[in-house]
Amino acid sequence: MKKYSHAQLRSFTEQVFVKLGMPANQAEIASSVLTEADLRGIDSHGVARLSGYVRLRDANRANFAPSLKILHETPSTASLDADLGLGLFTAQEAMKLAMEKARNVGTGWVAVQNSNHFGIAAAHAMMALEEDMIGFAMTNASPLVAPSGSKERMLGTNPICVAIPAGKEKPFVLDMATSAAANGKLEIAQRLGKSLPDNWVQTREGGSSNDAFELKNGGSLLPLGGHKGYGLAAMVDILSAVLPGANYGPWVPPFVAFLNPLENLPGKGIGHFVGAMRVDAFRPKEEFLAHMDNWIQRFKASERLNPEEPVLIPGEPELAAKQERLATGIGLNAEVENDLLALAARFELSL
Amino acid sequence: MKKYSHAQLRSFTEQVFVKLGMPANQAEIASSVLTEADLRGIDSHGVARLSGYVRLRDANRANFAPSLKILHETPSTASLDADLGLGLFTAQEAMKLAMEKARNVGTGWVAVQNSNHFGIAAAHAMMALEEDMIGFAMTNASPLVAPSGSKERMLGTNPICVAIPAGKEKPFVLDMATSAAANGKLEIAQRLGKSLPDNWVQTREGGSSNDAFELKNGGSLLPLGGHKGYGLAAMVDILSAVLPGANYGPWVPPFVAFLNPLENLPGKGIGHFVGAMRVDAFRPKEEFLAHMDNWIQRFKASERLNPEEPVLIPGEPELAAKQERLATGIGLNAEVENDLLALAARFELSL
Repeated sequence: MKKYSHAQLRSFTEQVFVKLGMPANQAEIASSVLTEADLRGIDSHGVARLSGYVRLRDANRANFAPSLKILHETPSTASLDADLGLGLFTAQEAMKLAMEKARNVGTGWVAVQNSNHFGIAAAHAMMALEEDMIGFAMTNASPLVAPSGSKERMLGTNPICVAIPAGKEKPFVLDMATSAAANGKLEIAQRLGKSLPDNWVQTREGGSSNDAFELKNGGSLLPLGGHKGYGLAAMVDILSAVLPGANYGPWVPPFVAFLNPLENLPGKGIGHFVGAMRVDAFRPKEEFLAHMDNWIQRFKASERLNPEEPVLIPGEPELAAKQERLATGIGLNAEVENDLLALAARFELSL
Repeated sequence: MKKYSHAQLRSFTEQVFVKLGMPANQAEIASSVLTEADLRGIDSHGVARLSGYVRLRDANRANFAPSLKILHETPSTASLDADLGLGLFTAQEAMKLAMEKARNVGTGWVAVQNSNHFGIAAAHAMMALEEDMIGFAMTNASPLVAPSGSKERMLGTNPICVAIPAGKEKPFVLDMATSAAANGKLEIAQRLGKSLPDNWVQTREGGSSNDAFELKNGGSLLPLGGHKGYGLAAMVDILSAVLPGANYGPWVPPFVAFLNPLENLPGKGIGHFVGAMRVDAFRPKEEFLAHMDNWIQRFKASERLNPEEPVLIPGEPELAAKQERLATGIGLNAEVENDLLALAARFELSL
C-alpha cells in the first residue's frame, strides 16, 4: 500500500476542487476538511470520497461556487441556505456563524438546508475547541438505515459529534454514527472477506444477516442498539432537516450520483445542524478546564478489563491515528489510488 | 395487583412531601413530575422511588425547601445551584429559565449543580412543547455503568430526552438511558425470574453475564452498543456536571441513602442539563409543524417487518400507556404498595 503525505493529498484535493471552479478560499477549507478524515483514520470519509463529490458536480447535483444565505435568525440561532454547496465548506461556515453567536450570547446554533455531505462531523465540531467552546455537529445522509420494526431504508447513518475542550489533557471528541456500524466498517469487512457481527445489517425482507454485501442486495443497516439508535438517528434527521427545510428521511438525496433524488421532495438538499457553547457561559473557564482534566484522568485510571489495554477517552484513537499519519503518511488502497489517478489524468494534475 | 388512580398517587405524594416540609407549590410540581413516570409506564421512576426520596431527606442528603440561585448567566445560558433540592422540582425551574431565555434569544440552556434525581427526563423536556419549542433534558446519576474497556462503575444510566412538537400528530419524545438497559428493566427481569439478554451487564471481573441480579454481586451495567453508549453517557455526565460544577463520574452521590457519598467530592450534588429551542428561531412555526407531521406520517408508513406491528415513533408507547392509565388506573406491585402504606402510616395519611 503506497503512502502519501497529508500535504500531498490535501493539495491534490484542493487543486481538483479549483479545476472544477471552486473559489480558492473555499477549496482550501474543503480540502482540509476532507483530508482530516484520512488523518484521523476515518478512511471511508476522506479522499476515498473525492471522486464521489466530483461525480455529484458532474451531475449538477453540487454547486462548487455557492453563495450562502441566512434565511432566518435570532441572537442564538440561524438557518442557512447552503446553495447546494459541499458540506465540507458550508458546515464550516455554519460553525463560524454559530461561534460568532456564542461569543455574543453564550451559545449559537445553526441549521443548514440545501447542502451536500460534510465529511467527518468532528472536522466541524472541533472548530469550537479553538475558542474553548463545546462544539456540536450532526448531519443527515442518504437513507440506508431501517427504523426499529421496519425493513425500509429511512435514515442515514446520521452522525453526532460533540467536542469538549480540556486543559492539559487532549479534548474529548465523540464522533459516532447512530447506526450500529457506519458504512465504512462494512467496506472494511468486504475488503477482508469477513462476515459482520450480529445486528449490523438485515436483509431486504428484514431477516438477520452477517453478509458484508447485504446492502447491495437491498438490505439495510440497523440502528445502534435497536430502538434507541433509531431515536437518535431520527433526532439528527429532524434537527438537521425539518428545522432548516432540508430533505429528511427517505427523501435525502443519495450521495452516489448514479442514483437520482426522488420526486416531490419536501425540502432542499441535505441538512446539517451545528452548535457552539462557550464553557464560560456556565462557569469560569479555568475551573471548567481543570475539572475536564480531572474527569479525563479519572476515567483513564478506571479499572481495566484487560491490564494491557488502556481505557480510552472518545477521540483518543483518532488523535493517535492523526499523529502517526502526520509522521508517516497515509496509505491508500489500490481502488482509492486508482480513483485519484483517474482524477489526476482528467485534470492534468500530478498526485 | 391493586390499581390506584393517578390523582390518588399524585395527591398522596404531594402530601408526603408537604409533611416533610416542602412548600406547597414545590410539592405540587414535584408530585406531578414523579407520578408522570407512573402514567407513562416507567414504573421504576414513579412512586416506586418515593420512599427513596424520603430516605434521602431523612439522611439529610436532600433539601425539601431549597432556594435556587443563579450562579452564572448569559442571554442564552445559566448555571443554577439547586440547593440540594429534588430534581423533580429543580429541573422544572431550570427548564422554565431555559424557556424564558429561548423566548428572548431563540434558545436557552441551563446546567444545574447541587441537585438530586429528577425522575423521568421527559417530564422536563416536554415542558417545551407547550410553547412549540424543542426541549432537551439530561442528568447524570449514581455510577452503575462501566466505560468500554473497564470493569469499574463510572457512569450513571445518564438519560437523554429530546421532545419535538408536531402539528396534528403527537409530539416526538425520545427518552432513553444511555446504558444498554435502564435499571428498571433489570428489576422487571428480577421479579419475573428471567435472565437478561447478552451485553446488558457484566460481572465484577468484567465477564459476560445474563444474571438479572449481577449488580448486587458488584457487577456493572454496560453502555448502549459498546463504546458509542459510553461516549453518550460521558457527554451527559460532562454537560450535566462538569459544566455547572456538580459531581461527575464515580463521585456522583448514590440515590440509595444507605450508601454514603465518597469523600473529597469534586462538585456539589448531582447535575442536570436542560435546553429549549424555539422552532420559529429557525423557520416559520407552521412550516415546521407541517413538516413534522409529514415526517411522522412517512415513518409510520414505512414498510413493516411484521405486518401486524406498526412502526412506532419515539414517545408513542409512553403516550399509549398514559392514556390507558389515566382511564383505568395504575397498578402497583406489592413491594411498592407496602412502601407507600408504610409512608402513609408514618405520616398519618391514607393512600
